[in-house]
Amino acid sequence: MINYPGSKKVYQRTTTSGVTSRRGMSLEEDLNRTNEQYLIREIAVVHKKPTPIQIVNVDYPSRNKAKITEAYFRQASTTDYQGVWNSYALDFEAKETRNKTVFPLAALHQHQIDHLTAVHRQGAIAFLIIRFSEYDETYLIFAKDLLPFIKDTTQRSIPYKWIKQHGHSVAASYQIPCNYIPVIAEVYQKGVSYE
Amino acid sequence: MINYPGSKKVYQRTTTSGVTSRRGMSLEEDLNRTNEQYLIREIAVVHKKPTPIQIVNVDYPSRNKAKITEAYFRQASTTDYQGVWNSYALDFEAKETRNKTVFPLAALHQHQIDHLTAVHRQGAIAFLIIRFSEYDETYLIFAKDLLPFIKDTTQRSIPYKWIKQHGHSVAASYQIPCNYIPVIAEVYQKGVSYE
Repeated sequence: MINYPGSKKVYQRTTTSGVTSRRGMSLEEDLNRTNEQYLIREIAVVHKKPTPIQIVNVDYPSRNKAKITEAYFRQASTTDYQGVWNSYALDFEAKETRNKTVFPLAALHQHQIDHLTAVHRQGAIAFLIIRFSEYDETYLIFAKDLLPFIKDTTQRSIPYKWIKQHGHSVAASYQIPCNYIPVIAEVYQKGVSYE
Repeated sequence: MINYPGSKKVYQRTTTSGVTSRRGMSLEEDLNRTNEQYLIREIAVVHKKPTPIQIVNVDYPSRNKAKITEAYFRQASTTDYQGVWNSYALDFEAKETRNKTVFPLAALHQHQIDHLTAVHRQGAIAFLIIRFSEYDETYLIFAKDLLPFIKDTTQRSIPYKWIKQHGHSVAASYQIPCNYIPVIAEVYQKGVSYE
């Protein structure tokens, strides 16, 4: 038996004039909820990687309990999300911006670009999910489109217009607030439809 | 340009009567070194996941420095190693035992078995790497063989003999001390040969 994580949180949503809205929910929360649903429905298995921590000192106040008393954040060497869909390795980073005209490339670290490059070359389905929170719009940009742009650009940002043109719009529903798998399924020509 | 991690450590090995030996090197160290080489040679991209930590308190002794002063270890919900080879998602756990006759199942947590089950069903190449350190022998056991055994057994262990029969021996070399990809390549009938 698979021990699925229960959906513990109450999910709040406000609907304004027919537009599905997730105001107040971060992209990370939406992805957690989405990945939970994907796991339960056996659509995909995707997890967020833990933040890497350098542990310096640990106390043992009682026999079974280890208390970390000194530690530091380390820079991650990979993207945040990894998993499997339909045998394929999935690998992506997710970023949110309040900027209305560009996605600032400062939000993407060089090691994340290097990692996306490496997994893309190895045949993983590698991509970036960008949410423009002011528009409540979420896009998936595949590494094959993203990496040449980043390599060629002299700008420190990706224009919103470019993302709208080369990215794929990610739909939201109450149950699956960041439903990125149908985008992948369509591009990989499986014709799979979810919800 | 991909920023490959340099091989910083000096790797020590003693060779006794023609047998490749990695005495003193843990399976984890061997896998780190192996995965580094796989990354450099573009054979596969595999990383060990960071240990999940519950952070309770953070101090900021200076403007740029965050010092974690209270944190606890959390139970991981996945296996330790994930990556991509030849488009396939790779997902595995690695364990070492000094036991000479069995691999104790207590070393495998239920959540790891659940996770292996989920990714195996989703088509990932899921497996367990077990090293019998007293014999200096390392085996790869695919989830398709491992999971039915665990489900059916009433024992709290997997016999060494069963592993020798159903597992695949993993070769070691100076450069690649836990060379598991050729086992996978052979089973997945690509006929790829490394080293």
